[in-house]
Amino acid sequence: MMIVMKPTATEEQIRAVIERVESVGARTHLSRGEEVTVIGAIGDREHVQRLELEGSPGVDRVVPILKPYKLASTQFKHGERSVLDIGGRKIGGNNFAMIAGPCTVESREQTLETAQVVKDAGATLFRGGAYKPRTSPYAFQGLGQEGLRLLQEAKDETGLPVVTELMDLRDLDQVLDVADVIQIGARNMQNYSLLSEVGRCGRPALLKRGLSSTLDELLMAAEYILKEGNPSVILCERGIRTFETAYRFTLDLMAVPVLKELTHLPVVVDPSHAAGRRDLVVPLSLAAAAVGADGIIVEVHPRPHEAICDGPQALVADEFADYVDRVQAAAAVAGKALSAV
Amino acid sequence: MMIVMKPTATEEQIRAVIERVESVGARTHLSRGEEVTVIGAIGDREHVQRLELEGSPGVDRVVPILKPYKLASTQFKHGERSVLDIGGRKIGGNNFAMIAGPCTVESREQTLETAQVVKDAGATLFRGGAYKPRTSPYAFQGLGQEGLRLLQEAKDETGLPVVTELMDLRDLDQVLDVADVIQIGARNMQNYSLLSEVGRCGRPALLKRGLSSTLDELLMAAEYILKEGNPSVILCERGIRTFETAYRFTLDLMAVPVLKELTHLPVVVDPSHAAGRRDLVVPLSLAAAAVGADGIIVEVHPRPHEAICDGPQALVADEFADYVDRVQAAAAVAGKALSAV
Amino acid sequence: MMIVMKPTATEEQIRAVIERVESVGARTHLSRGEEVTVIGAIGDREHVQRLELEGSPGVDRVVPILKPYKLASTQFKHGERSVLDIGGRKIGGNNFAMIAGPCTVESREQTLETAQVVKDAGATLFRGGAYKPRTSPYAFQGLGQEGLRLLQEAKDETGLPVVTELMDLRDLDQVLDVADVIQIGARNMQNYSLLSEVGRCGRPALLKRGLSSTLDELLMAAEYILKEGNPSVILCERGIRTFETAYRFTLDLMAVPVLKELTHLPVVVDPSHAAGRRDLVVPLSLAAAAVGADGIIVEVHPRPHEAICDGPQALVADEFADYVDRVQAAAAVAGKALSAV
Amino acid sequence: MMIVMKPTATEEQIRAVIERVESVGARTHLSRGEEVTVIGAIGDREHVQRLELEGSPGVDRVVPILKPYKLASTQFKHGERSVLDIGGRKIGGNNFAMIAGPCTVESREQTLETAQVVKDAGATLFRGGAYKPRTSPYAFQGLGQEGLRLLQEAKDETGLPVVTELMDLRDLDQVLDVADVIQIGARNMQNYSLLSEVGRCGRPALLKRGLSSTLDELLMAAEYILKEGNPSVILCERGIRTFETAYRFTLDLMAVPVLKELTHLPVVVDPSHAAGRRDLVVPLSLAAAAVGADGIIVEVHPRPHEAICDGPQALVADEFADYVDRVQAAAAVAGKALSAV
Repeated sequence: MMIVMKPTATEEQIRAVIERVESVGARTHLSRGEEVTVIGAIGDREHVQRLELEGSPGVDRVVPILKPYKLASTQFKHGERSVLDIGGRKIGGNNFAMIAGPCTVESREQTLETAQVVKDAGATLFRGGAYKPRTSPYAFQGLGQEGLRLLQEAKDETGLPVVTELMDLRDLDQVLDVADVIQIGARNMQNYSLLSEVGRCGRPALLKRGLSSTLDELLMAAEYILKEGNPSVILCERGIRTFETAYRFTLDLMAVPVLKELTHLPVVVDPSHAAGRRDLVVPLSLAAAAVGADGIIVEVHPRPHEAICDGPQALVADEFADYVDRVQAAAAVAGKALSAV
Repeated sequence: MMIVMKPTATEEQIRAVIERVESVGARTHLSRGEEVTVIGAIGDREHVQRLELEGSPGVDRVVPILKPYKLASTQFKHGERSVLDIGGRKIGGNNFAMIAGPCTVESREQTLETAQVVKDAGATLFRGGAYKPRTSPYAFQGLGQEGLRLLQEAKDETGLPVVTELMDLRDLDQVLDVADVIQIGARNMQNYSLLSEVGRCGRPALLKRGLSSTLDELLMAAEYILKEGNPSVILCERGIRTFETAYRFTLDLMAVPVLKELTHLPVVVDPSHAAGRRDLVVPLSLAAAAVGADGIIVEVHPRPHEAICDGPQALVADEFADYVDRVQAAAAVAGKALSAV
Repeated sequence: MMIVMKPTATEEQIRAVIERVESVGARTHLSRGEEVTVIGAIGDREHVQRLELEGSPGVDRVVPILKPYKLASTQFKHGERSVLDIGGRKIGGNNFAMIAGPCTVESREQTLETAQVVKDAGATLFRGGAYKPRTSPYAFQGLGQEGLRLLQEAKDETGLPVVTELMDLRDLDQVLDVADVIQIGARNMQNYSLLSEVGRCGRPALLKRGLSSTLDELLMAAEYILKEGNPSVILCERGIRTFETAYRFTLDLMAVPVLKELTHLPVVVDPSHAAGRRDLVVPLSLAAAAVGADGIIVEVHPRPHEAICDGPQALVADEFADYVDRVQAAAAVAGKALSAV
Repeated sequence: MMIVMKPTATEEQIRAVIERVESVGARTHLSRGEEVTVIGAIGDREHVQRLELEGSPGVDRVVPILKPYKLASTQFKHGERSVLDIGGRKIGGNNFAMIAGPCTVESREQTLETAQVVKDAGATLFRGGAYKPRTSPYAFQGLGQEGLRLLQEAKDETGLPVVTELMDLRDLDQVLDVADVIQIGARNMQNYSLLSEVGRCGRPALLKRGLSSTLDELLMAAEYILKEGNPSVILCERGIRTFETAYRFTLDLMAVPVLKELTHLPVVVDPSHAAGRRDLVVPLSLAAAAVGADGIIVEVHPRPHEAICDGPQALVADEFADYVDRVQAAAAVAGKALSAV
C-alpha cells in the first residue's frame, strides 16, 4: 500500500502515519519527492487492510498495491484456470456452458417441457427460479418449495444438473436437496451471511455481479465463499446500472476479459435481464461468446406470452436449438466448444 | 399505465396487447396518433403491475402512470407527514433528529464515553454497530452479541434510544432486545427476507438507500416493511455511486426534497460514509440540514485515530457540541428545530 | 406527448396545461383515471417540443411519445438501411468496415508504414489524427497541418480513403482537402456549431458518442448534421463512463443492436480507447463484430512502444493481418463480410 | 508517478519501464515487495505525463502522485484563495455572489424587467443567454446578436455586470463587447479551442462542469484557460449524470468542499438545470450556500409560464427578493455574506 501525503502534510503527520503503519507490524518505506512524500507500507495483507488511513490528517490518498482478494486471484492458482465439474459437465477452460431454462418455475408442464427442449438442444445445465427476488412486494415471488419439487422432477427426467437461486438462509436445506449449483442473485451479492453459509455448505455457487458492483467487489464477494473452503464459484456478469435509459441495464462485456486476467474462476454472462427483450438477447449472446465468456445463462419459455414473469425476454423454446447453433459458432471464434456430458 | 406501440406495430399486435390487459381485469383506452398508437391500461395497481408487457411484440415502451408503491406514497396519508415517536423523541415534521455515535462498538470505554458526549450535546438517538457489513472477509466484522450488550449499557446510562444494524435474520431476537430502531444497511436494501421480517417485528426501521438504488426502489423497499403492518420507517440517503473518483460516494442531497414530495416518511442523511473524511462531514451536514432533511446520522469517536473502523470520517467527540450548534443553525434555515425529550 | 398530472393537480392546473398545449396548435386528449389525469398532446413534433411543460404547476411528468429526431429515425427511411459509399467502399448493410491506422500522425515513416500495413491486411479506410483533443493542455496536440499533409501522402500511396478528426471550425477547409470522412470526437458530440458546419459541408461524418450521452442524444447530434442536408453520418460507440474503475471506459455493445432498431445510419465501434490496452482490444473487437456492428475503428502502430500517444492500446502492425482474419470470422457470425473495393 | 508492475512482470519488462522513464529525463526509484514491484518516476510533471505507460507490457497500473494541473492548484497560490473583481463586485473569499437573470434573453421587456428585479434584490451579476446550446436542432437557439444588444441595454440601465455564454469562436468579438464574464457551458467544457481562446482574450470566465466530468477534468479545463495567462476563472457545478431518473441531473454538492481543497478558484453552483423545477431550486440553493459555495447562478423570469425556454425552473421575479433573503441566511451559516458594490 502506498500512502500519498498532501503537499501540505507536516513532518508530524508523516511521522504519525509511519507509527500507525508500524504499529500493525508492517514495514514502511519513505519516498520524498519535491512536492509530495509517499510512504510505502509493506506487510501482511490483512494487517495492512486494517490500517484505514484514508482521510487521516495529512493523507491525500491511499493507493492499494496488492489486490484485496487472495483466493480468487489468478496468482493463487499460478495462472492455471479453475475448471469445475458439475454432474459431469465441465465449466471453465475451453468449455462453453449453455445454462438455460425458465426465469421462474411456473407449472409442471412449463418446467418439464422447457427442460426437455434445452436438453435436446444440448444445454449444459438447467436453470429455473423457485424463489424470486422482486422489486415490488406485490409481484409474484415464485412457487417456493413446490418449485423446488418441480426442478427435481425436471432433473430426474432429463439428467440435467440444476441451477437455482437461494435468497433466504432459512431455505438452505431445501435448496441443497435439489440444486447442483446455488445461484446468488445480484441484489444479494453483498449479503455476507448468505455468502458465508454458501461457502460452508460446499455446493458450487453461481455469483451474480451486483448492479453497481466493481469487479473488485465481485471478487471480494467470491472471496467470502472461497474463504469458507468452497472452491467452486462461477462469476456472472448480468448488466450494470448506467445513465442510459434505452435499456434496463448495460451489459458490461468488458468485464469478461478483465475478470479472466484478475481471477482463475469461470465467468459466464446473463444477457436476458439487461436486454429485457428477446430480440436483443441473440446479438448479446453472440457477443458474450465472442468476447470469451465461459458460458451463458439464458431464459427460455415454451410460450413466453403466457409467462408470469419476464416473458418478453425469454427465448422461444422452438427457436432454442437454432440459437444454440449460432452461439456455438461465436464461441468457436473465441476458441471454446459447448460443454456437454 | 400507458403502452406506447412501435410505429411499425401491426393491428394484430395492438389487439394482442389489448387482450392481455383486459385478461387481468383492467380496462383499456386506445389513442391513435398519426405516427404511433398508445394504449392506456386502467385498473388495479397490482393487476396492472403483473402485466409485464415491456418487450412484447410491437411494444415500444411501457410508461407507468401510477407509482408502484402505495403505502409509502404521499397520497396514502393525504399529504400529512409521518412523525415517529422513538422513546419520546419525535422524528419527522419540524423536528430535526441528531443521530450520533460510533461507527462500530469497539470497547466499553469507547461506547460509554461517546454515548455521554453525544447525549450532552443534545443528540436525539444513539447509534452504534455491533454487526458490521464489510467488503472484505478479512476485515473486522463487529463485536456481535458483546457489542449489543455494550449498547444496552450505554442506553441504560444515558437514556438515549439506540439505533443498530441487523444483517442476519438469525440475530433478530438479540437485536430486538436492544434496538429502538433497526438499521437496514445499503447493501441489504433489497434483501427482501430481511425487509419482510423487520416489517413483521414491528420495530421502527432506518432504511438506507442502496448505493445505486433509485428513489422508486428505495420506496419499494420501504413498502416491503410497511406492507407487513409496520408504519415506522425512516429513509436514509447515504451517497450513491457515480463516475467521480474524488470521493467514495456522491451524497445525493437532491434526494431529500424529492423524497419529501413522493412520500410521507421521514428522510435523514448520513454524511459520514460518502465523505470518508471528517473535514467534509461538516459542510455536508450543514447542506443536509439546509436542504430540509429530517435529521443526520453521523459517526463520533472519542479518539478517531484509534478507531478500528472508519476513524478518519468520525467527528472528534470534543468538537461534537460545536458541530451540533452549527447544524442546528442550518436546520433553522429550513424551518426545523433539534428534536429532544 | 403525454402529460401526467400529479394526483394533487387542481382543475385549474389541468386547464392551464390544456390551454398551453392548444396555444401552440396541438390537439389535446384528456384521460381521467381514478388517481391521476393524463393529457395527451397530439400535433407537430416541433411545436410540441417547444412546450417545455416539465415542471409546470400540477405536472408530474411529461412522457414523450414520438422520438425527438426524425431524419435519423428508422421510420424516415421506412426500415431501409443507409449504405454509404466512401471512395468506392460500402459502409452499412452487410458490409463490415475495418477502419484502421495510427491514433496520431507522428511522422512520415510511421504514417506511410502503417497505411501500407492496414491496406495489405484489407482495411476499408485509413484513420489518423492530425488534431488531437487532449485532456491536458501540456500534452502533445497533434502535428496539425503537417499531419494532414502526411495523411494525403498516405492516401496517394495506398488509395485508402482517409478518416480524420476536426476539432476547430477554423481548420475546416484544410481538413476538407484531405478527409473523405470527418471524425467528430466524443467531447465535441454536442458542439452544435461544429455539427451544423459539418452538415453544411456535405462530407461524410463519423460521429462519436459522447462519454455520457444517451442514444437519443447521439441521434439528436446526428440530426444536427442531417438537417443541413448531409445524409452521410456514421455513428460510433467508443465507451461510456460508469462507476467501474478497472477500465478507462465501459464499452457499451448493447448500443449497437439498439441503435440498429432506432436508426437507419451505420454504427461502428471503437474498442481502443475504452480498453486502453492491446490485449483487451482483440476480444472487444470480436464481440463488436459478433453483436452486429457495421465496422470497427481501431488503432495500429508499427512500434507501439515508441508511440507519442496511446501506444499501449495500439495493435502491433505485424499482427494486424491475423487480427483482421479473426474479426472477419466474428463478423460472419453476424452475417457480415469485410468491405473492400 | 508510481508504476505498479503485475505480479507476473518479468525483469526485462521492469527494465524496459525504467529505461522508458529515464529516457524522458525523470529519475526512477525501485521498490520490490514480496508480490509486486513498484517503480517510482520522479521528475518534471510535463515529461512524466508524456510517458503513457498505462497498458505497457508488465504494467498493472500507473498511479499519478502529482495532480495533472498546476496553475489551478491550491499549492500554486500557497493556499491563498483567488478573489476576482468583476466591475467592483468581489467573487470568492468570504463573498457570496448571487448571479441571476433569465435563462434566455427573449424580449426587451422580459430582459429589462428581470434585470431590474434582480438588481433591486441585491444580485451581484446579471446573467442571460443570447446563444443557447440545445439538444434538438429544432429548438429555439437564442436571439443571438439581438440578445447581446438587449443585455447591453440591461447593463446600462442597472449597472450590473453581465454573464453570457459563448458557444462559437466566430461570435467571440461580439460577446466581448458585452460580457463581463464569459460563460462556457457544460457541453463545451472540453472544447479546447474555445477554452484556449477565452484564455487568450483575458476576460473572466465562468466554466461549467461537464455532466460527466470528474473534478480533475474540470480543473484541467480551467488549466487550459489559465495557461494562456487569464487568471480569472470561476468554476460552476451544475449537476452530473447518474442512474437516477427522478431528476434531470444529480446536483453534486460534495464537489464544492472538495474543489475548495484542490483549487484556489471560486466555485459557484447552478441549481436550476439539475432541478428543472422551481420548487426544488429553493432547497438546493440553501444547501449550496450552506455547503460553502462562493455563489449561485440562478434563473429568474417575470412570467415563467410564458418563457420560451426552461420556464418551469425559473424563479418567479416577484418572489426573488425573499429567495435572496433565505439564501443569505444559509450562506451566513457557512461564513459568507452577499457580495455587492
